[in-house]
Amino acid sequence: MPSPPFRVLGIDPGSRSTGYGVLEISNRRVHYVASGCISAHEGELPNRLGTIFRGVTQIIAEFAPSTMAIESVFMAKNAASALKLGQARGVAIAAGVARELPVFEYAARQVKQAVVGTGRANKEQVAHMVRVLLQLPGTPKADAADALAIALCHVNTAALSET
Amino acid sequence: MPSPPFRVLGIDPGSRSTGYGVLEISNRRVHYVASGCISAHEGELPNRLGTIFRGVTQIIAEFAPSTMAIESVFMAKNAASALKLGQARGVAIAAGVARELPVFEYAARQVKQAVVGTGRANKEQVAHMVRVLLQLPGTPKADAADALAIALCHVNTAALSET
Repeated sequence: MPSPPFRVLGIDPGSRSTGYGVLEISNRRVHYVASGCISAHEGELPNRLGTIFRGVTQIIAEFAPSTMAIESVFMAKNAASALKLGQARGVAIAAGVARELPVFEYAARQVKQAVVGTGRANKEQVAHMVRVLLQLPGTPKADAADALAIALCHVNTAALSET
Repeated sequence: MPSPPFRVLGIDPGSRSTGYGVLEISNRRVHYVASGCISAHEGELPNRLGTIFRGVTQIIAEFAPSTMAIESVFMAKNAASALKLGQARGVAIAAGVARELPVFEYAARQVKQAVVGTGRANKEQVAHMVRVLLQLPGTPKADAADALAIALCHVNTAALSET
């Protein structure tokens, strides 16, 4: 019996650009649905965070994922960049929680391990393998590729192991 | 002619405890409406952030503020605490943005200056002056007092100057 389709939204949060990627699992296969970036360059901080919130909310409304996967962050370059990243991350998680999506976190090395096979892969390797694994016609932009990698990591770690 | 009542929600975000305080301005006078803390100690990070989001959302639904005021943060002890604080802050701002509240930021020294008269006041002095200015029967808890101080700062800086 075919299993019902199941969609995962991967999010790579950033204070200026938040990547997203949507994958669908149907009949135990992973299909690419959509990916892109939410740009939040304009205005004061609350406006930029509002742009991220509305962007993620709109993506959830459009693609109806069942779950959200986001990279967990354990360290940052410095306190100022950690604060900015934390705010963007909090807003993205809030958008998922507001739509009652379960939110899963994966460490960067788990994501790289799942997609490239090594926790020490660089961004280019991740983008390349995302393209190969999802049979995309071109390499997605960096933030979108990372978001797709996070969604792939969730699919490999959680969703397919349950079916 | 009496001006219509106007409510300000002050938020003091934290990863474990988020303070809130609601003030009403009517006929050019400031009245205390409510204050308290949202505790988010339980479960994984997305759950805790979800608790903050739902808590702030519920407070907005209950007290119908016209605007949100929140402390801006320029530095933190270290990157790990900055990330945690940033996430809580992002979630609180998202809850305001989701309800289309304008969100205003004030630096800690602006808040202290507005409430105590000096940017170098300590937490006890802030709590004491919040009690005196709002004619409260007792001193509010630290997080609630800080949230009320932020709301008072907004009232002094923005709202009353427009009437």
